[in-house]
Amino acid sequence: MTRPEPRSYFASTASFATGEDSPRGFLERCFARIEADDGDVGAFVTVNPDAARAAADEASARWKDGRPLSAIDGMPVGVKDIMETADMATEQGSPLFAGWEGKRDAAAVAALREAGAVILGKTVTTEFAATEPRGTRNPWDLTRTPGGSSSGSAASVACGMVPAALGTQVIGSILRPSSYCGVFGFKPSVGGINRGGSYDVFSQSCTGTIAATIDETWVVAREMSARCGGDPGYPGVSGPMVRPAARRPGRIAVLETAGWEVAGDAAKAAFSSVREKLEAAGIECVDRRSDETVAGVEDAIADAVPLARSVNAWETRWPLNTYAKDMDRSGLSGVSVERLAEAEGMTQEQYQGLLRDRDRARAAWAGLGGSCEICITLGATGPAPVGLGSTGDPAFNVPASLLGIPALTMPVMEVDGLPLGLQAMGFVNEDAALFGAAAGLLTVL
Amino acid sequence: MTRPEPRSYFASTASFATGEDSPRGFLERCFARIEADDGDVGAFVTVNPDAARAAADEASARWKDGRPLSAIDGMPVGVKDIMETADMATEQGSPLFAGWEGKRDAAAVAALREAGAVILGKTVTTEFAATEPRGTRNPWDLTRTPGGSSSGSAASVACGMVPAALGTQVIGSILRPSSYCGVFGFKPSVGGINRGGSYDVFSQSCTGTIAATIDETWVVAREMSARCGGDPGYPGVSGPMVRPAARRPGRIAVLETAGWEVAGDAAKAAFSSVREKLEAAGIECVDRRSDETVAGVEDAIADAVPLARSVNAWETRWPLNTYAKDMDRSGLSGVSVERLAEAEGMTQEQYQGLLRDRDRARAAWAGLGGSCEICITLGATGPAPVGLGSTGDPAFNVPASLLGIPALTMPVMEVDGLPLGLQAMGFVNEDAALFGAAAGLLTVL
Repeated sequence: MTRPEPRSYFASTASFATGEDSPRGFLERCFARIEADDGDVGAFVTVNPDAARAAADEASARWKDGRPLSAIDGMPVGVKDIMETADMATEQGSPLFAGWEGKRDAAAVAALREAGAVILGKTVTTEFAATEPRGTRNPWDLTRTPGGSSSGSAASVACGMVPAALGTQVIGSILRPSSYCGVFGFKPSVGGINRGGSYDVFSQSCTGTIAATIDETWVVAREMSARCGGDPGYPGVSGPMVRPAARRPGRIAVLETAGWEVAGDAAKAAFSSVREKLEAAGIECVDRRSDETVAGVEDAIADAVPLARSVNAWETRWPLNTYAKDMDRSGLSGVSVERLAEAEGMTQEQYQGLLRDRDRARAAWAGLGGSCEICITLGATGPAPVGLGSTGDPAFNVPASLLGIPALTMPVMEVDGLPLGLQAMGFVNEDAALFGAAAGLLTVL
Repeated sequence: MTRPEPRSYFASTASFATGEDSPRGFLERCFARIEADDGDVGAFVTVNPDAARAAADEASARWKDGRPLSAIDGMPVGVKDIMETADMATEQGSPLFAGWEGKRDAAAVAALREAGAVILGKTVTTEFAATEPRGTRNPWDLTRTPGGSSSGSAASVACGMVPAALGTQVIGSILRPSSYCGVFGFKPSVGGINRGGSYDVFSQSCTGTIAATIDETWVVAREMSARCGGDPGYPGVSGPMVRPAARRPGRIAVLETAGWEVAGDAAKAAFSSVREKLEAAGIECVDRRSDETVAGVEDAIADAVPLARSVNAWETRWPLNTYAKDMDRSGLSGVSVERLAEAEGMTQEQYQGLLRDRDRARAAWAGLGGSCEICITLGATGPAPVGLGSTGDPAFNVPASLLGIPALTMPVMEVDGLPLGLQAMGFVNEDAALFGAAAGLLTVL
């Protein structure tokens, strides 16, 4: 197992016009890394080399002619196996869907192909993008989880098997594996990228990007949203087609969330050191002890984990009920069977109460927008834990899901030689402002 | 062709406990009507007699034991063929999906079965629940359209082939066919009934009920929402499990909408006569000439048709793009090909502008809630037009779709021996109040 090293596509595109390099050449380097390491890592469910090579050759010709379809023309992308692809099965991490082939591309996949991107393969997801792991290993230490549910997307980007991959998050499924694997992970504002053809029906669920660089994290998302929009009825990720210019924020909130109590000491120390660097650079950092509004937000999101889990339980009553009744109950994991039982014990009125609680938390968060440009917290409670039986604790990632806000984790910390992300959180539909401010933080760190 | 006559299930359930009648007996009467008339009408794509009879027998036993699962236990229901059913193909009115079998029940279908309902068959939908008709005829006059896109659902209920059927509406697809076919049709508040497993991805789209009586129209919707909820993130249709008690409203708004200009004289006369009866019963009726707020609402919804069509165009870019590229472009109707071209000519920014326009119209409508209990207008521009090449003009039905409000059409008018509906429109998430007031109007009419 070679040391993980994310592979930037944008670092290569300047050589494509001269013919010195090409999307096809780039793709072959990705395949070489898959060949070398995916036996250990298990990031991919399926790869489609023939289709990928054909698409890369077309992109190579376009770059050479100086007429690429977009900034991501020819970029190899991994697609989480919860989204339909016309040329590959979509198994949803479940034996119930082993070999299942839709005939369609999901909206985000269709948008990627329209922009010229090369859909290299399908990346491993936990069962139904929930919690049951499906064997992917953390490339930094094969005894550790890569996180989930976007396990294969984060692991594949970490190894340079692809420069970018699609993930989805309803609890912590983009931010946490990105933190564990040492890559950038972006969970957009809720509804930010059209989920058509993605089998995640939750109100908090969101399609996002995991990539080697902050620029690619933004641009892949933005190239999609320009073509497939957001979820129907939502404005979708908006802003410049290039990564928003770095702008150092004047005042940010430092959040603990419910994660702080369970975070490791080394992770807390790494985070404190980041905070000190930001303050030394003149960025005012306020927290629950120094600012009443921040304290109010901390209170409002203190129960984010149980609240989000209950919301999700009701929302997964279907399809788990038809899977259990009409497909094969024994093909569901124990966790899914338990979740269905929990859902069937709930009432519509209870769910309506949960939505009201969520609305209150969202209102509290929005109130912070007047005084803080962004918020930061840890990307995870620490480095990836040992063991493949769990995908780790999402406590730091749930607030962004519950609140429907954009969040970005950046691989700027390290604990015991393992990566740890710094998570920046913004305000709903202000995804571009989040990236500008996060890029501003990177200039300091 | 026998004269259409809707068949109430609730009128029979009192006899189920005694064994004098049974759900199985009721089902056989439905099959007899299908046998007699569906060759002419073409309401069903598929029926599943074996599964329906087995389910009806189980329900018969429960009623006889005095322990029905719900008020609709044993009720035969038709399901629009845009929704997945585990035991029947889901063809979406498209040759691209001929014989296509999901393995799941849609959320609404799973909820119906959980309540004991008998899923008798799949009813004809226009292509992708849009505009291309698929041959269903109006049972009142076989030379006329039944309306669409819920063509088979409305026609089957009109004939007494089923007491109730599921429809979906994104433009006028529940209200208009219900008006044309002389049945009750309910389009809930947007998000009112979980659309999981229904292939209609639009932000304005909504699953609803078409039924023989106002009581069944409500109860079928409510029994579903109690089990599957609304769309994720929405409260869902709420209120009593029985039809809300009739309450004669004190003040209602009479709307013209953009439909009035194209409505037929006989339809207008029938509607004026309804208004006179309501006024004679002491219900104050205000309109654009007598009330400034109503005038403002009329202005706000004047462009509802083009605005809704543009919103839908962007939202159907996917999946039409993957159907054209990855399945078989020649399997799309000319209308779908044109709609895809229109969508591909639009930008995300244009769509965002449309959403802002829609938000303004919704705010204007909400402002009417303080002064009027409900609004009424025509259910259609007149009786069903002759010809099967079009499903008729939806001008009177689009405002409810655009505004996301609940609307109910009631078969209380007649023009030239053909049915015409009275449409009642309410306020978002106040579906129960709409039914109470609409039932109040029925006591007068």
